[in-house]
Amino acid sequence: MPRYKITIAYDGAPYAGWQTQPSDLTVQDVVTAALEQILREDIQIMGSGRTDAGVHARGQVAHFDTIHKISRKSFLRSMYGVLPKSIAVTDVEEVPGDFHARFLASAREYRYQILTQPNPLGYHQAWENFREFDTGRMSEAAGLFIGEHDFISFCRKNPDQQNSLCTVYTSELEEIDSSIIYHIRANRFLHNMVRRIVGTLVQVGLGKGSVDSVQELLDEPGKHRCGTTAPANGLILEQVFYPEEVLTFKKFHK
Amino acid sequence: MPRYKITIAYDGAPYAGWQTQPSDLTVQDVVTAALEQILREDIQIMGSGRTDAGVHARGQVAHFDTIHKISRKSFLRSMYGVLPKSIAVTDVEEVPGDFHARFLASAREYRYQILTQPNPLGYHQAWENFREFDTGRMSEAAGLFIGEHDFISFCRKNPDQQNSLCTVYTSELEEIDSSIIYHIRANRFLHNMVRRIVGTLVQVGLGKGSVDSVQELLDEPGKHRCGTTAPANGLILEQVFYPEEVLTFKKFHK
Repeated sequence: MPRYKITIAYDGAPYAGWQTQPSDLTVQDVVTAALEQILREDIQIMGSGRTDAGVHARGQVAHFDTIHKISRKSFLRSMYGVLPKSIAVTDVEEVPGDFHARFLASAREYRYQILTQPNPLGYHQAWENFREFDTGRMSEAAGLFIGEHDFISFCRKNPDQQNSLCTVYTSELEEIDSSIIYHIRANRFLHNMVRRIVGTLVQVGLGKGSVDSVQELLDEPGKHRCGTTAPANGLILEQVFYPEEVLTFKKFHK
Repeated sequence: MPRYKITIAYDGAPYAGWQTQPSDLTVQDVVTAALEQILREDIQIMGSGRTDAGVHARGQVAHFDTIHKISRKSFLRSMYGVLPKSIAVTDVEEVPGDFHARFLASAREYRYQILTQPNPLGYHQAWENFREFDTGRMSEAAGLFIGEHDFISFCRKNPDQQNSLCTVYTSELEEIDSSIIYHIRANRFLHNMVRRIVGTLVQVGLGKGSVDSVQELLDEPGKHRCGTTAPANGLILEQVFYPEEVLTFKKFHK
């Protein structure tokens, strides 16, 4: 049975996050229903990871198996026809049968936007926070996250979690007009991690926390708790990365 | 009585355009009501120009007179508190008593976005048009608009209009990911002009019109009618420009 990898963009506002749950409607529910409607078979999809209620995505990835052969262009058109405007499948490709959207992801990239001025065209995907930020100090603190650290102080407690080590590849601040945009790429993310990092950076930017205190949070994992958790609607899952070899079909040897 | 210039951003979707009209709610109505609530006096505002129903703005400009002295920071905060999320006043400054938002504007800049792929995070401010565009030809055609031309073939008929000459300073296409963005700056715009230019460029991009046919529309004003009118929700009024001297208070001579 062929396995397919799909890329999904969504406005998280109307949904209780990515992953199917007992009560509320999730993005996974809606995408599964759309696939079943088009392919006329039962479909199980596996996402690269959860996103919380209200968090958006430009490049969530999932995989599923189907008895059908999918043709890219007509599949994307059909999915557009069936899905609500708040969700879109933007890409599809056949992948080897052992591809796994969650376990084989090598990195994920998130973007968090803070608006420092009202913006009727952009507030849906941002945290409106109109105070004066010292972005120099925020940038300095952001740089501390790069490398391998224990992020236990930056996540929600989770007894199932075996370790809280993450390797951060990118952690930087960008200022565009009246926006502060934070970019972070890491091999993995713990629950609420980006939102807690942003909450911590905001404290630093407002002078309520020092750059040194951020260093302590990283140096003494679990000893201190970080400050606030930034709101979900400022967060976008931008991209999920996979090693080239897990996407490539091996040539068969005779 | 002091005169103030305000800059206004809005999501045009919920409104019947900028300008007050007998029936439906407009942006001007809402801004006027907010000003009257805060200043507790009757206020008349004059915008730099109309925007159609559904058209957005990042930098609409208007002026009004008030008996009050306005302090920038607290005024912007009060307006934010009173206005709906779909409208924001982003700047205010005192201007000379003979400043006029409409008659003294020296240029206006618009941006039109076409999405060539579904985008749940961006479709509110774009024309979703998923065909294959020859953007090279579109760029070539866009360049033809630069300079002074009679745009009678690119506007809705208006018997009150004395002439249809406009001077275009910028007219260019930008491609970002799955977006085609058209930027145009001119001294003035006729009714529906940007949307008709974009409709014409799209025809060229789809091979339904030639670059030469666009040249003919400009060379023989009124002889031909341009093609389609692009939808309102892709259009944003980006900025209104004024000569420095009309914003500056003259020094009084003894």
